[in-house]
Amino acid sequence: MPKPANFGKKTVEIVAPKDGEIQVKNEWMSVDPYMRGRMYDRESYVPPFQIGETMQGGAVGRVAASAHPDYKEGDLVSSMMGWRTAWVGKPEAAMVQKLPDVGLPESAFLGVAGMPGLTAYAGLLRVAELKEGDVVFVSGAAGAVGSTVVQIAKNKGCTVIGSAGGPDKCAFVKSLGADHVIDYKKAGGFAGLVKALKEASPKGIDVYFDNVGGDHLTAAIEVARPMARMALCGMIAQYNETGTPVGPHNIIMAVGKQLKLQGFIVSTHADMQPAFFADMAKWIPAGKMKFEQTVMEGIDKAPEAFMGLFTGANTGKMLVKLT
Amino acid sequence: MPKPANFGKKTVEIVAPKDGEIQVKNEWMSVDPYMRGRMYDRESYVPPFQIGETMQGGAVGRVAASAHPDYKEGDLVSSMMGWRTAWVGKPEAAMVQKLPDVGLPESAFLGVAGMPGLTAYAGLLRVAELKEGDVVFVSGAAGAVGSTVVQIAKNKGCTVIGSAGGPDKCAFVKSLGADHVIDYKKAGGFAGLVKALKEASPKGIDVYFDNVGGDHLTAAIEVARPMARMALCGMIAQYNETGTPVGPHNIIMAVGKQLKLQGFIVSTHADMQPAFFADMAKWIPAGKMKFEQTVMEGIDKAPEAFMGLFTGANTGKMLVKLT
Repeated sequence: MPKPANFGKKTVEIVAPKDGEIQVKNEWMSVDPYMRGRMYDRESYVPPFQIGETMQGGAVGRVAASAHPDYKEGDLVSSMMGWRTAWVGKPEAAMVQKLPDVGLPESAFLGVAGMPGLTAYAGLLRVAELKEGDVVFVSGAAGAVGSTVVQIAKNKGCTVIGSAGGPDKCAFVKSLGADHVIDYKKAGGFAGLVKALKEASPKGIDVYFDNVGGDHLTAAIEVARPMARMALCGMIAQYNETGTPVGPHNIIMAVGKQLKLQGFIVSTHADMQPAFFADMAKWIPAGKMKFEQTVMEGIDKAPEAFMGLFTGANTGKMLVKLT
Repeated sequence: MPKPANFGKKTVEIVAPKDGEIQVKNEWMSVDPYMRGRMYDRESYVPPFQIGETMQGGAVGRVAASAHPDYKEGDLVSSMMGWRTAWVGKPEAAMVQKLPDVGLPESAFLGVAGMPGLTAYAGLLRVAELKEGDVVFVSGAAGAVGSTVVQIAKNKGCTVIGSAGGPDKCAFVKSLGADHVIDYKKAGGFAGLVKALKEASPKGIDVYFDNVGGDHLTAAIEVARPMARMALCGMIAQYNETGTPVGPHNIIMAVGKQLKLQGFIVSTHADMQPAFFADMAKWIPAGKMKFEQTVMEGIDKAPEAFMGLFTGANTGKMLVKLT
């Protein structure tokens, strides 16, 4: 568990942008659970954070000065240059994206209209090839990604079964429009999940969005209909495994039922962002995409906000407001 | 194990085709291991055989009389009306396909240019999205499907690692052009397979064609490169499991490596047949698609040919010549 003493603050002079660079004043920054994973010195799909270097993370801000032909003062941009109040650099190196003026609150671009939202969108629509009328099962349905999955699937005309742990989270998932909610703590393991899924949808499921792995994945394979698609987004049930995890014993069903199980990472699907923004700009003002956020004020609160992720200090997306 | 007494022969009058029907004289029929599976009374993707009804199976023959506008006398056709010397009926109900005159031996349409061949072709090219330069791993590489997978992958400019059991089968796989052959009986389980795969391809694999399941699948996941694709065709290691099979314990790797695992059945990909025939008609005469077959003569030998599948009586595809 990270401690306040693990964090430091440094003040540096902000310089004018050189040719091809922009200067950005951040307005919001994100803290996310995945950042804890980047504090391990191990091989992964993103390199670990380096001690003494500034933390990276999602941020939204406005261009304050530009020496880049594609950007002008006042442009709203997202970047991976979080944990800073301002920065100067080449937009390409900072993974900058210009954000559309579609009437969304700026902070939404770090949550429901940002990376967690795009994860849900790309996973459902591309990886799981969602079709109208599908029966969709999503685990971790009360989380940032899962709660967006529930609502996208409902907006696309699907039947949704969400699983979450405990009555409060289950009530939240129900409030998002899920047709059936399974409290996995009450269901009790593989057999209980299969029973609950069969009660919710006797004919089986067409899509499974996996945030959890373990028994949830095995149960999804068990009740999958022929040609079902499974988007594997995370397997939180296995993150803290110390022994050898147990794989899905019924994987052979994938042959006869012609199932597709596909893992994915959101950055691979960045090309879907324009369509994603357009849909979010329709859904959010229409009340068809609810989201919650917890806001802390000022860069000095960033470590507290981050550590609060692991003590349940947040409801919905945890954010730091920088201006 | 089926016994001769389980089979019977019946002679019926062959009638002239009515409107929309054709009369076909079969020249070759196929016996296949999957037919044993259809002798169990259980739910599957094809219904079980019925006692007293004629067995179904692949056959190749020529139209002897036609009352269907799309067929004329002499047309070469495949159908699922095997275990018969002749038949009359609607071609649509018999899954009839007109076979192209591309210079292939007729019997090849029941093997390398038939269902096992199309299984290899569709699994590699569509399900596993084969690209030139891929490192391809195939298990069961000495079998009817696996040996075709090896050769298609080589013809498409890939590096091929095949696994098979015992020195004779391994030598056969090597003779087909595989770059590396793993004797899984010598490798000894998951760790041994991983070691052998890493020796064959230190950078990992891009495609896995699974005929076996079990440790082979788990090892393939372990050494898969990012974005690798796995076509799940059969899991023979699990067919005779009596207890609960063991699933791949490392399935979580599918997320970070963005793996795709997809089961398939050949009939779903029947639309690929024209391209498949065209490629086979190029490869077979050029010596780039070797195949072996064992032929028994006459319909009376059909039970013996079928039972011989389970005693190793065949090298390559087992066929019955009917004329």
